[in-house]
Amino acid sequence: MKKGIFITAEGPDGAGKTTIMKLLGERLEAEGYPVMLTREPGGIEIAEQIRNVILDKSNTKMDARTEALLYAAARRQHLVEKVLPALEKGLIVLCDRFIDSSLAYQGYARGLGVAEVFSINQFAIEGMMPSLTLYFDIESEAGLERINRHKDREVNRLDLENLAFHQKVREGYFQLMKDHSDRIFKIDASKSIEEVYQAAEKKVKEMIHQAD
Amino acid sequence: MKKGIFITAEGPDGAGKTTIMKLLGERLEAEGYPVMLTREPGGIEIAEQIRNVILDKSNTKMDARTEALLYAAARRQHLVEKVLPALEKGLIVLCDRFIDSSLAYQGYARGLGVAEVFSINQFAIEGMMPSLTLYFDIESEAGLERINRHKDREVNRLDLENLAFHQKVREGYFQLMKDHSDRIFKIDASKSIEEVYQAAEKKVKEMIHQAD
Repeated sequence: MKKGIFITAEGPDGAGKTTIMKLLGERLEAEGYPVMLTREPGGIEIAEQIRNVILDKSNTKMDARTEALLYAAARRQHLVEKVLPALEKGLIVLCDRFIDSSLAYQGYARGLGVAEVFSINQFAIEGMMPSLTLYFDIESEAGLERINRHKDREVNRLDLENLAFHQKVREGYFQLMKDHSDRIFKIDASKSIEEVYQAAEKKVKEMIHQAD
Repeated sequence: MKKGIFITAEGPDGAGKTTIMKLLGERLEAEGYPVMLTREPGGIEIAEQIRNVILDKSNTKMDARTEALLYAAARRQHLVEKVLPALEKGLIVLCDRFIDSSLAYQGYARGLGVAEVFSINQFAIEGMMPSLTLYFDIESEAGLERINRHKDREVNRLDLENLAFHQKVREGYFQLMKDHSDRIFKIDASKSIEEVYQAAEKKVKEMIHQAD
């Protein structure tokens, strides 16, 4: 039975990963590759309900561990209902954020512990790790600036508080790259969209042909 | 700083544990003990929202691991918002079902694995295990009969299918009792309410005075 290929994208908001993944999906599909582009909760009803609990602004008392368990639960359901069936059909699954986001943001930056957050996610994904993870790297200042640019304003105090957190997230991703150097591929996301796209496409095509 | 005592009740529906815990709460309080009776989600808004996702009848596609993660998330939030503050105040917390329910029902009876379900719950409770767990034991047939009695009908085919599952849950509790013999105390719940109550009260008071 032919199986698909599971590829994920990681990095901070502002690194352009969502744009690049969309482009990748479109262009690969135009070239005849069987592709599915997705991200959690991905229109999966149960995962959407869980995401609503996480994002509900009135839930100010939500504990960081509750949140981590909810992300793992939404991940599980999205994986079972959407990702695994697509892989069974032999599709190339491009997933915008996956387990590494939980490890970098909650495990590392929020201080819950990478190993501990990995363990609840391991329960959720049962070893279904991506074959390739594209990590879109950008200096935290530049990432925040990109996010704020369309808002047409100066970087403010709140952004600077965020800066320390985003720097921690980046450190987390660096740690993950070190521990999973065979899986995580770093892409310099400070360059132009077309350059970033080319780097991503090259790596993805290598992976596809390697799997042939 | 004086701390409270964390006591949980376990067993199948039909064993009478909810009735007994309520009685225990009332009588201990009448005798002047500082008591809080609770059960998950316990009126905690975030835990209630999570429970709604679990119990939503239209969520027929819910995966067993998603469900286990959601129970752990609701447990975490209830623990942090309700149980821990009560224990900090020195209260005797009586909690109707806790981690052992997940271990017996999902880990053992649903086959997810007791060790695996324990590990996600360990993430949720961070070692905050009960000092005492009362396990209300009853033959699965008798438990089901008690549940059905007020419905005024014969045991039907569906109940018999349930029987195998409930027997598995009971096996799961027996396994837990073996592994946590210092914590889990078995009470014969086939006896009269007053007899069951007396056995429970005796054990709880031993625990309270031991903690003095």
